[in-house]
Amino acid sequence: MTRNLPTSAARIAEDIDGLAAITEPERPYTRRAFTPTFLKGREWLVDRFDAAGLETRIDAAGNLIGRRPGRRPDLGTIMLGSHSDTVPDGGRYDGIAGVSAALEVACALADQGIALDHDLEIVDFLAEEVSIFGVSCIGSRGMTGQRPDEWLEREADGLTLKRGINDVGGHAAATLTRNDIVAFLELHIEQGPVLETEERDVGVVTAIAGITRIEIVVDGRADHAGTTPMNGRKDALVAASWIVLAVERFARELASGETHFAATVGEFRMEPNAANVVPAQVTLLIDARAEDRTDMERFLAELSTGLEGIADETGVAIAPPRVISDNMPTPCDPGLLSVLDAACETAGARHRRMASGAGHDTAWLAKVTKAAMIFVPCAGGRSHTPEESAKVEDIALGAAVLMEAVKRIDKGEVS
Amino acid sequence: MTRNLPTSAARIAEDIDGLAAITEPERPYTRRAFTPTFLKGREWLVDRFDAAGLETRIDAAGNLIGRRPGRRPDLGTIMLGSHSDTVPDGGRYDGIAGVSAALEVACALADQGIALDHDLEIVDFLAEEVSIFGVSCIGSRGMTGQRPDEWLEREADGLTLKRGINDVGGHAAATLTRNDIVAFLELHIEQGPVLETEERDVGVVTAIAGITRIEIVVDGRADHAGTTPMNGRKDALVAASWIVLAVERFARELASGETHFAATVGEFRMEPNAANVVPAQVTLLIDARAEDRTDMERFLAELSTGLEGIADETGVAIAPPRVISDNMPTPCDPGLLSVLDAACETAGARHRRMASGAGHDTAWLAKVTKAAMIFVPCAGGRSHTPEESAKVEDIALGAAVLMEAVKRIDKGEVS
Repeated sequence: MTRNLPTSAARIAEDIDGLAAITEPERPYTRRAFTPTFLKGREWLVDRFDAAGLETRIDAAGNLIGRRPGRRPDLGTIMLGSHSDTVPDGGRYDGIAGVSAALEVACALADQGIALDHDLEIVDFLAEEVSIFGVSCIGSRGMTGQRPDEWLEREADGLTLKRGINDVGGHAAATLTRNDIVAFLELHIEQGPVLETEERDVGVVTAIAGITRIEIVVDGRADHAGTTPMNGRKDALVAASWIVLAVERFARELASGETHFAATVGEFRMEPNAANVVPAQVTLLIDARAEDRTDMERFLAELSTGLEGIADETGVAIAPPRVISDNMPTPCDPGLLSVLDAACETAGARHRRMASGAGHDTAWLAKVTKAAMIFVPCAGGRSHTPEESAKVEDIALGAAVLMEAVKRIDKGEVS
Repeated sequence: MTRNLPTSAARIAEDIDGLAAITEPERPYTRRAFTPTFLKGREWLVDRFDAAGLETRIDAAGNLIGRRPGRRPDLGTIMLGSHSDTVPDGGRYDGIAGVSAALEVACALADQGIALDHDLEIVDFLAEEVSIFGVSCIGSRGMTGQRPDEWLEREADGLTLKRGINDVGGHAAATLTRNDIVAFLELHIEQGPVLETEERDVGVVTAIAGITRIEIVVDGRADHAGTTPMNGRKDALVAASWIVLAVERFARELASGETHFAATVGEFRMEPNAANVVPAQVTLLIDARAEDRTDMERFLAELSTGLEGIADETGVAIAPPRVISDNMPTPCDPGLLSVLDAACETAGARHRRMASGAGHDTAWLAKVTKAAMIFVPCAGGRSHTPEESAKVEDIALGAAVLMEAVKRIDKGEVS
C-alpha cells in the first residue's frame, strides 16, 4: 500500500542508516551511552538537527535538544523524543526510530510551511538503556527532577556518572526540572509481536506497565544423587520447578484479563550444580509487569500462597518472596490518548490501544506532565538484538500520526 | 550396647584419627590423590601396615598393598581393601573406614593367632575419587587390567597420570592383571540414610548400580519479558521445569520396585539468564542409577516419550536425550553374599541386603573375580563433606563381619 504521507520514509531511512553505521565495528549495533561511539552518534545527530533548522543544545541533564521556536513561547513546549543509545549488540530501531520520527515531524512541518504557536522540541534523551552505571533513563529522569542525587557518584570503568554527564556536554551539578512542557509524545518500536500479528500500524499506549522484581530462595538439602532414596530427598530443583510452573499459571490467568500482565522467571541459579549431588539451593528472580496495579497485588498474594503449598508438598524451605524492586504502572494522559486516536484516523493508521510492557522515557515524563506514546510494529517482536527490524514506511506513518497530534495539541485540543 | 568383638574399635579409631590429622590444613579433610598430603598419608599407612606385620609394597598400578602370607599360597589371595584418598573438603570415613577395617582384620587374626591357608592382602587403592585427572578408580582399574592406556597421557597441574602413578611408587608402563585373587571384600560407609533410619548395622551390597548420564537441551526463544504476551512465548525454563518433574515422577515409580533406582537433575544451566529476557535455552544433566538394567531401559524409554509430549505442549524444541556415559550395573558375587549374610549372623550384626547407588573399587574387582562389599551406617547419610561421620563401633562390627567372612572363604565356603 502506498500512502500519501506528509512525512518522508526516505529521510527516516537516512537517519536510521546513518546512526547504524556509527557502531562498535565488531559488534553491531552497539552505541552505548558515554562511549566515544555514542558521542560520534550525537555529533551526527547534531548535524541532522542543524540541517532541519533546529536550535540545538545539550541540557544540564545531558539530553540533546533541537528547538523549533513557536509564535507564542509563553504557551509552553510540545516535546517529541526518544533515545539514540543502544544496549550491547542492540538494534537499529529501539529508540532511534523515535528520535528519527520526531526529527521528521520537524522537517515535515517545515516542508509544509506550518508554523506552530508552541515551541517544539526534539529530544535525544541520554542513556535510556541500562548503561555502564547500571541504571536507566538517566536523561529523562534528570530533565524532570527525578534523578537521585546519589547516582552522580556511581562509578564504572573509572568514570563517575557526574563526570559522564559533563563529558557529553551536560552540567550534572545543576538542578533541572522543566515545567514548560505541555505535552510529550514518543514513538517507539513495539518490541513485542502484537501489532505485527494483528496487522495494525500503530499501538496507542495506554500505560507503561509497572515492573516488580521478586526473588525467591529455595533451600533443599545436598545429598548424594546415587545413594539417597527418592523418597528421602529435599530436592531444591524439584521445588523450584513447581514454582516456575505456578508463576506461569498465575501469569496466564492474569494475562487473560483486559489489561497487560506478564511474569517471567528470567534468572535461575542452582547450587551446587554438580552431576552427582541432589540440588541444595535454587534462587529465582521473577520479573512481573502489570498495567493494572491490582493485578500485581493479586499476583503477589497468589505467589505467597502458592509457595507455602509447594514448601509443604516438597519438604524444602522457601523463604517468603522478597520484593527487590517495585515500580507502579504509569498511565498515559487520557486527553493525549484521544488526540492520538484521532490522529491515527486522520493519518489512516490501523490502530489499537495497548499497554507497554517495557519501560520508556515517556514513563518519567508522564510523572510531571501530560505524556503518551505510540508503538509501530517490529519484525517478530524481536528487540535488543542485531536482527531487530522495522519498516521505515511504518515509522513514517507513525511520524505522520505524531505530526497530526502535534498540530492538534498546538490548537489546544487537549483538555 | 557393648559387644564382645574380635576386632578393636580403639585401633580403628587410631587409624581414622591418624589419617584425619594428615589433611590440607585450611580445608579438612582433604587428601587428594597425587598430592604431597596424600603421600604423607600413605607413609603413615605404611608404618601401620608394617606394625601389623604385613609385607608392604606398592604395585605397578600405584596401590599400597600389605600381604599376610598364607600356608598355601597356591590357593590364591583373599583381598580386602578400599581407598585413603578423599575429595576436596571430604570426610574422614569415605574409603578410610574400609582401609582401616581391612587392616584391623589382619591385626585381629594375628591377635588370635589364626593362620590362613590363603594369602591375605590389605589394599589402599590409588585414586578412587575423581582426582585432578578427571577420572576415578585409577588403582582398582589398573590392578585388573581395565585402565585405558590413553589415560596415562592425561595431564593436570603440569603432571601426566603416568608420571603421577610413578611418583607414588608405581610403574605405569607395566601391564598388570592380577589373576590370583579368589575373593575381594570391601567395607564402606553407606553414604546414604537407609541403615541409620532402619537401625541396621550392616548392608550386604547386592550390586553396584549402573550410572547413566543423560544431557537434554531445551531450545526456546529469547523474547522481551515485558512485551511478549504470555501466550506467545517459547519459554525454555517452563519446558525444563516440566522435564525436571517428569524425571522425578519416572524415578519415583521405578524406585518403588524391588531394586534400587534413582534419578537426579544435578546440573542445570540457563541462557541468557537475564531478568528481563524469556529464557532461551536450558541444558540439563540427568544422573540416573539402576541396580537392574531393565529399569534404566524403561527410564530412558519413558524419558524419550515424555520429552516429545513436553515439546508438543510447550512449543519449544527438545533434542533427543543424549547419553553422555552409560555404565552397566555390576552384581556382587552371589556366593560371597551368602557368606557375608552368614558372617553377619555369627557377628551378631543386624543386616539387610541393599544395592550401592555410588561407584566403588569393588565394581572393578567384580568384573574379574568374585567380589562383594558391605556398608556400615553413617550419620544422616552425609558424605563428601567435613561433617561426614560414622561410629567406630559400627566399623569394628563391620570389620568383625569381614573377618568372619575371610575365615569362611579361607575354608572354601564359596562355591
